[in-house]
Amino acid sequence: MGDPAGIGGELTLRAWLALHNGNQRFVALDNPERLAALTRALFLDVPIATVASPDEAGAVFAIALPVLPINLANTPRPGHPDKANATAVIASIERAAALALRGAASGVVTNPINKAALYDAGFAYPGHTEFLAVLTGAHGKQIMMLASPSLRVVPVTVHASLRNSIAMLTTDAIVSAAHTTAIALQRDFGIARPRLAVAGLNPHAGEQGALGDEESTIIGPAIAALRAAGIEVSGPWPPDTMFTAKARARYDAAICMYHDQALIPLKTLDMDHGVNVTLGLPIVRTSPDHGTAYDIAGKGIADPSSLIAAIELAATLAERRATSMRNTA
Amino acid sequence: MGDPAGIGGELTLRAWLALHNGNQRFVALDNPERLAALTRALFLDVPIATVASPDEAGAVFAIALPVLPINLANTPRPGHPDKANATAVIASIERAAALALRGAASGVVTNPINKAALYDAGFAYPGHTEFLAVLTGAHGKQIMMLASPSLRVVPVTVHASLRNSIAMLTTDAIVSAAHTTAIALQRDFGIARPRLAVAGLNPHAGEQGALGDEESTIIGPAIAALRAAGIEVSGPWPPDTMFTAKARARYDAAICMYHDQALIPLKTLDMDHGVNVTLGLPIVRTSPDHGTAYDIAGKGIADPSSLIAAIELAATLAERRATSMRNTA
Repeated sequence: MGDPAGIGGELTLRAWLALHNGNQRFVALDNPERLAALTRALFLDVPIATVASPDEAGAVFAIALPVLPINLANTPRPGHPDKANATAVIASIERAAALALRGAASGVVTNPINKAALYDAGFAYPGHTEFLAVLTGAHGKQIMMLASPSLRVVPVTVHASLRNSIAMLTTDAIVSAAHTTAIALQRDFGIARPRLAVAGLNPHAGEQGALGDEESTIIGPAIAALRAAGIEVSGPWPPDTMFTAKARARYDAAICMYHDQALIPLKTLDMDHGVNVTLGLPIVRTSPDHGTAYDIAGKGIADPSSLIAAIELAATLAERRATSMRNTA
Repeated sequence: MGDPAGIGGELTLRAWLALHNGNQRFVALDNPERLAALTRALFLDVPIATVASPDEAGAVFAIALPVLPINLANTPRPGHPDKANATAVIASIERAAALALRGAASGVVTNPINKAALYDAGFAYPGHTEFLAVLTGAHGKQIMMLASPSLRVVPVTVHASLRNSIAMLTTDAIVSAAHTTAIALQRDFGIARPRLAVAGLNPHAGEQGALGDEESTIIGPAIAALRAAGIEVSGPWPPDTMFTAKARARYDAAICMYHDQALIPLKTLDMDHGVNVTLGLPIVRTSPDHGTAYDIAGKGIADPSSLIAAIELAATLAERRATSMRNTA
């Protein structure tokens, strides 16, 4: 569901319109009444079918949007987050994780939430990802991959100021992120021998120390450790030239040192089709690469491309993961 | 000429091949013998005409590459920089600046140099730009703009480590760079009312202080000062979403806080057609957006697109500047 005051609901409706004639099916964990109200307000032709299980959802998907009902405390008003509905938002995440964990769903796609609105209801996590890690009993560290048709990036540091991102950068963090990425590319993305490109931190990757030394003190040792572990890895690359079409052809994912080093090229190349993939969870989980967008919520102008891409990618990843598991079983 | 051991010579030959049937003419300040040797080595059909002045060059340009001769101490070997030729490299810059200053040439386009090879010959500048500032008696500060068909960017901090770039960022530096940019866009780029977009430094432009405070302490005050000076400026923008096609349509140049914030989107969008434009000089000066490329020098595989774009842009800028000057005279 995501935040019912955000654009999630209308994106879900449009995703069903885009996908209901195809092979990839989903069930919304959402409130059927509020979705029905949205279809009327936006003049969308989306029949809503309240269902009791993902199996029922699969049977009805071609003719109606199946919804596993979540109760809301208040009727949501687009653009106006309401703390009274926080429990429902949390319940939808919990139920989705439980369905995926027991194999009743192939994976989870999360619509955007507003963490601030959830904290009062006892939500004690920085975001979806950490909550899902607890719900699914994940070991190790989760990392975020952003995937678009033209580029996959994994930022080693994420939500910190640029100054703190530099201070937080360690050899271990790079090795761990690259390792998790290599495993995911093999198991979920079907790449037998993944090639990772590690970015430098500084302009021209430090120019042999003239423009910074993190390439030799932090990044170089990480690359050496990854190679010693048998991972195919190159770098540290000058950040400004590693995202050209020619350079991108030489790797399957770029390991980036900070948020914008990863997200500037991804969004510049393909703003609308970026999907956030959480690596390191026991379940498949993707999400659209945008926020609740309160400013346009309920207006019917939100672009569903990223949610649709997130649903399609989750389906593909789940299928590949199932195949990998069968092959290794 | 640039470094005669780099790719400059072969780029000059290919630029003449691409441009000699058009209206934009140039004269090479280079060594005619070494260019003739290059044409033979690379099987290029480029007649070389030694000339004594830009006027002579203009008359011959359609049928031969005009060269104002520069003497070399040694025969250059591609890929092997030779300090004995440093005096010649410096002389070609000096003569080009002098021709442009007295109006005999409309502007200067510089091929890449290798500063390290010039220092022993008494070259005491960090690069071309600072040397040209002295040669032309420039007032104030020069800044670098990178221009491609899809984007113009101006990095406020340039050749420093990322850590030092953050430390060096000041309100004054942003105001000064934006001011120089606005003047150049009006006078040389023919944009009557330039729109500048100022980037944030931190992810999500700091998210109201949660991810860094430079947006409120340094960048915000710069934007306020620029607006007070009558400049049309927006920001601070989240860096990852300000280079999409939709966002780019809303500004004429992006003022960026550090090297890679500017160069990642520029090179990702258009690696081969980026041109370096020096703003704040009394002459028009452009250069290709790459280095000496010793590793491929003399092999005939260097791509002349950026030099050709630099020559074309210099011609366009010079024409517009001349028109602006006539209109204000």
